[in-house]
Amino acid sequence: MSRKIKRIALLTGGGDCPGLNAVIRAVTRAAILQYGYEVFGYRFGYKGLYNNDIIPLTLETVSGILHKGGTILYSSNKDNLFNYLIEENGSMVKRDVSDVAIENMRKEGIDALVVIGGDGTLTSARDFYRKGVNVIGVPKTIDNDLAATDVTFGFNTAIDVATDALDRLHTTAESHHRIMILEVMGRNAGWIALESGIAGSADVILIPEIPYDINKVVEKIRERESHGRLFSIIVVAEGAKSINGDIVISKIVEDSPDPIRLGGIANKLELELEKVIKEHEIRSTVLGHVQRGGNTCTYDRILSTRYGVRAVELIDEGKFGSMVSLKGDTISYEPLENVIGKTKDVDPDGELVSIAKKIGISFGD
Amino acid sequence: MSRKIKRIALLTGGGDCPGLNAVIRAVTRAAILQYGYEVFGYRFGYKGLYNNDIIPLTLETVSGILHKGGTILYSSNKDNLFNYLIEENGSMVKRDVSDVAIENMRKEGIDALVVIGGDGTLTSARDFYRKGVNVIGVPKTIDNDLAATDVTFGFNTAIDVATDALDRLHTTAESHHRIMILEVMGRNAGWIALESGIAGSADVILIPEIPYDINKVVEKIRERESHGRLFSIIVVAEGAKSINGDIVISKIVEDSPDPIRLGGIANKLELELEKVIKEHEIRSTVLGHVQRGGNTCTYDRILSTRYGVRAVELIDEGKFGSMVSLKGDTISYEPLENVIGKTKDVDPDGELVSIAKKIGISFGD
Amino acid sequence: MSRKIKRIALLTGGGDCPGLNAVIRAVTRAAILQYGYEVFGYRFGYKGLYNNDIIPLTLETVSGILHKGGTILYSSNKDNLFNYLIEENGSMVKRDVSDVAIENMRKEGIDALVVIGGDGTLTSARDFYRKGVNVIGVPKTIDNDLAATDVTFGFNTAIDVATDALDRLHTTAESHHRIMILEVMGRNAGWIALESGIAGSADVILIPEIPYDINKVVEKIRERESHGRLFSIIVVAEGAKSINGDIVISKIVEDSPDPIRLGGIANKLELELEKVIKEHEIRSTVLGHVQRGGNTCTYDRILSTRYGVRAVELIDEGKFGSMVSLKGDTISYEPLENVIGKTKDVDPDGELVSIAKKIGISFGD
Amino acid sequence: MSRKIKRIALLTGGGDCPGLNAVIRAVTRAAILQYGYEVFGYRFGYKGLYNNDIIPLTLETVSGILHKGGTILYSSNKDNLFNYLIEENGSMVKRDVSDVAIENMRKEGIDALVVIGGDGTLTSARDFYRKGVNVIGVPKTIDNDLAATDVTFGFNTAIDVATDALDRLHTTAESHHRIMILEVMGRNAGWIALESGIAGSADVILIPEIPYDINKVVEKIRERESHGRLFSIIVVAEGAKSINGDIVISKIVEDSPDPIRLGGIANKLELELEKVIKEHEIRSTVLGHVQRGGNTCTYDRILSTRYGVRAVELIDEGKFGSMVSLKGDTISYEPLENVIGKTKDVDPDGELVSIAKKIGISFGD
Repeated sequence: MSRKIKRIALLTGGGDCPGLNAVIRAVTRAAILQYGYEVFGYRFGYKGLYNNDIIPLTLETVSGILHKGGTILYSSNKDNLFNYLIEENGSMVKRDVSDVAIENMRKEGIDALVVIGGDGTLTSARDFYRKGVNVIGVPKTIDNDLAATDVTFGFNTAIDVATDALDRLHTTAESHHRIMILEVMGRNAGWIALESGIAGSADVILIPEIPYDINKVVEKIRERESHGRLFSIIVVAEGAKSINGDIVISKIVEDSPDPIRLGGIANKLELELEKVIKEHEIRSTVLGHVQRGGNTCTYDRILSTRYGVRAVELIDEGKFGSMVSLKGDTISYEPLENVIGKTKDVDPDGELVSIAKKIGISFGD
Repeated sequence: MSRKIKRIALLTGGGDCPGLNAVIRAVTRAAILQYGYEVFGYRFGYKGLYNNDIIPLTLETVSGILHKGGTILYSSNKDNLFNYLIEENGSMVKRDVSDVAIENMRKEGIDALVVIGGDGTLTSARDFYRKGVNVIGVPKTIDNDLAATDVTFGFNTAIDVATDALDRLHTTAESHHRIMILEVMGRNAGWIALESGIAGSADVILIPEIPYDINKVVEKIRERESHGRLFSIIVVAEGAKSINGDIVISKIVEDSPDPIRLGGIANKLELELEKVIKEHEIRSTVLGHVQRGGNTCTYDRILSTRYGVRAVELIDEGKFGSMVSLKGDTISYEPLENVIGKTKDVDPDGELVSIAKKIGISFGD
Repeated sequence: MSRKIKRIALLTGGGDCPGLNAVIRAVTRAAILQYGYEVFGYRFGYKGLYNNDIIPLTLETVSGILHKGGTILYSSNKDNLFNYLIEENGSMVKRDVSDVAIENMRKEGIDALVVIGGDGTLTSARDFYRKGVNVIGVPKTIDNDLAATDVTFGFNTAIDVATDALDRLHTTAESHHRIMILEVMGRNAGWIALESGIAGSADVILIPEIPYDINKVVEKIRERESHGRLFSIIVVAEGAKSINGDIVISKIVEDSPDPIRLGGIANKLELELEKVIKEHEIRSTVLGHVQRGGNTCTYDRILSTRYGVRAVELIDEGKFGSMVSLKGDTISYEPLENVIGKTKDVDPDGELVSIAKKIGISFGD
Repeated sequence: MSRKIKRIALLTGGGDCPGLNAVIRAVTRAAILQYGYEVFGYRFGYKGLYNNDIIPLTLETVSGILHKGGTILYSSNKDNLFNYLIEENGSMVKRDVSDVAIENMRKEGIDALVVIGGDGTLTSARDFYRKGVNVIGVPKTIDNDLAATDVTFGFNTAIDVATDALDRLHTTAESHHRIMILEVMGRNAGWIALESGIAGSADVILIPEIPYDINKVVEKIRERESHGRLFSIIVVAEGAKSINGDIVISKIVEDSPDPIRLGGIANKLELELEKVIKEHEIRSTVLGHVQRGGNTCTYDRILSTRYGVRAVELIDEGKFGSMVSLKGDTISYEPLENVIGKTKDVDPDGELVSIAKKIGISFGD
């Protein structure tokens, strides 16, 4: 690793997340202004690394992108170069093409690679590091469910959007004495539902970590009625499940005359509640990708900038194979080896759930 | 009508709409401060008029509500007192109970009634006027589809929310080269889809007034691809229909093992497009009641205030049986008799559609 | 005018205004997609026309700018080419250099020029038209004070920003029983103060058209106190004046040891009120250029788009020497000759002021 | 302390801050729902404690206030009951009236007092604790400059507002090649300027902790010009000072014919820069109390809720004389004795300043 760094490259992998552009900007600016590196970007994640789809990143390129959602480098899912789908003799097969990627970097003179992505993307980063590539990882997940860092960027933007939706639903719920259901992201971890539910004054929060009993949800609605509160707000993570078993998130009724994808958990809840609660109308909203896009919130812009600059510092310090992380109020780093695959679920007995329960929020348990 | 006005009352009917509270506030303040009336509100629309659920409205009551969505008077649907469902001899029957309402007003000394509502609510208002009640109507529909007024309050708030969602979808669509579908309100008229589509830079706008051909939608997506634009944004009114026939907005698959309400037009579109477009992911969002709630936008606060004050002026002038309206830049009024049942659809050959087409937006026709 | 149009150019002049980019985009898209024109932009207004600082505008150039404040063509003030400051024999003199500009357009083959600007910019546009240039004007003023059009773009964005500030000031005013003063734009016309004051629930609105008596302002504050309302919100246009004479907006105390520009009307008001009102703290905020920038609001995006497309239609129709305008709900046009120099002040006896007074707002008169 | 807690009271002191209502709500809900306490509020801070201006707080009272800025309990400055200005024999004298307050609490049966305030307010809280009152403190300062807690509520809302203003200034700065100055809060600590400057893409950040050299600021502007960036954004804390000495924040020119309060640091900077930089216009905005009000941001709603619930838990645990605090990701507490008077300035050599410098931001040093 004693090689003097002259050129670095970045790539973004997995689902997009507000703050990606802020990381790209911070890496580029710090690398150029502070360390005199040349900076490049591979477009479309690892796929671009394989195809050598590379562009220079300059101060001009990253101007005006700090606040913008999305990624100017584009992204792709399903692009594990260690098990990559390619055409071979006319049929599609899976191959380890990582050497092609390494050779591409060698030809372009790339001395270090900053990989911004979630668990899958960072697993590949670790594997490239094992093969000798000077890798630095930057963690990305809108769900905030990585064990190695206290907060991931994008998460606070997502809860801002979800909380804003809850604020809006309140006035209409109250005027019509309705039950309003808001489905937010969170397949495996309920952080978005939990925090937006606290911030948005939800009455019920349903998350994957705490299987819900529909009767307890009804009980909460009835309890509110008994205090003259004739409306209720439910926020539900897309991966929430009932105590009776898993919920199919989405499926297609193929044999219907007019095939239609079945809605997710919000829909299911709506129908379950309608069977029992006759005197209120029940309405659901599925925020979907609105949570991922738009302007990056202030908090995430700062966090992403800190991550980006620290990543370049780690390159300068030769700390390859590591990932930047936030610990308390400090930007730190961890060996990728130690953090891959370790997720952070909501603790049903933890502080946030406990606080939520103490102010009267039901988790349906 | 020569009776001196001393006490007036308000009620709000039908679906809630940002700006209702601003009208209530303006009526109350102008009535008290300018004309010295006492002001009352019936809660839950006509139902409250029937049940005599009446509260005083004072400067204090209406303080701090100008910007708030919803209605402090609550609302109800399905409450036509001329054909009202009541219990009689143990069974539910429909009766004309309008005399009960009129007697309630007489007992409370209500000299004039301001009715804020949509076409159904205003039809009843007209019927009360025919029976001698001093009625003034204030038009309300979030869909902006009333013929008698250029703009209804709530509409601009709704397009703000929809446009904000479109802005958010853009960044994520662009990063992943996706087709994004946003379903907005508009059962019969496509105004919200049309205006938010223009403001939110949509590529395709589908509205009830212009039946769409799915092949034309695909054509537009392909045309963009040919110019290197690898993502597309589609905004669709919930009442949009294809040239092949109507779409069922929402139905329940009762015989499914796990009964689920089928999604609407956004879902149908998603499935139709998925059959043809294989290389892009397609995602849809249904904004739902998020469009109806939250803070009222600046434009609607001003329009509602103008409507509210004008309604009180009309009481003072004895112009009963009329409805306030916006004509160009002027607040005017119309006889309720002339405006009931007259809607305003998007004109497929009108200025806005023409402008949208000239900047390259497809309507699928 | 029988010349077939092949190439058109745009320029933006005067102070920037949310919606300029939306006009540029609409002109460019409609011109290319609908009429097959080539489109160019002169940078820095008329100065660029003189210097032939011209760039091509393509679909790509105008992508992603619909919602952005500012102008991608930049702007300049003080650039009347009919009386232009140039160097001649070593000293600066004013000359009519309009022929240079016309020759520049001829050389580039520009067949028609779309000029987006305020009264000064449009006066030059008229003068170029008189000299044979195919000019179309698009009116721009954030103050909404042009007589020839009902609404100018940028205005609604400005009142959104001002109203948002008023909303924020309310909570802090109420908590501390303070008098809060917000100074907004409006040198000659008080539209922004008037509309944001109505929308933002101000207690006092001071505008240039209605000279204020400080005693009447104090009276209003005292009246509120007598009803237990221990805070007041004042919105004041920067050009507001007292009945005792004009206010110097801004001047520099040169002979101060530490020269400082004196604040404007908000500051003056604060000091005047402090002399009389001892029991409340008084605080003022000067919004300044925050009102001009940021994202363009939904309303202005649509209006700008309509203006832009209509401008291209007028080129196609050969209606040169005219300016697009909004009349009621329709985009129309007027001869530039008829509209130059005609402003639209707030009518002290008009509907909006009357409505504001009826809900209890004081104008200090 | 073995006394069984039955009744608790709250008060809010000092300047208002977004999140106060969220703390009041959380304390009230947790106290009632979880611990069965009765809850009361003293209005106007310690003044209300002295005057026994007490009201009951119920679930109903705190409904709908989570997101609202300000404080429903009102606040007051300058109300140290240990040195309180009262009338005695016709003249105003300062007295220790703390025993009156303690007697008031005794009479009302208040078993514990939650005090929400900044350093001054908490010093009194500590003094009451020394005299035997069961006090729990909740830290409040919009400036985020308390040593005992990582983050105070209100701070993130303030940087959101400042960042939004910077976003808006960018477009107008860029269009006109202007130097834009934004003055934000921060008399002693520059946290708001620092974090909003990073998030809002400022070019220069001036804070009290790093005295600035005006020549370095000019240098930065010139350096940007040399790279074709013809505009600059400066964010300055109100307490920023130059290396040449302190700046008078605000003074009144009494001997002026028209006495006017002199503007603060933004104004001074504007004049200093105007002397040197002739080719750009320079404009300044003073955000003022707009930073304190309006809706509380998501982050602050959650933090305030956590603080509020933890305060009630500390009552239940008998941990009196302590203050809740955030340490990393955990809500903890500290003895008031240890934390009074300890502030947290921006470290000129700390991580955030270092990161800002590495991406090219100048601090004028």
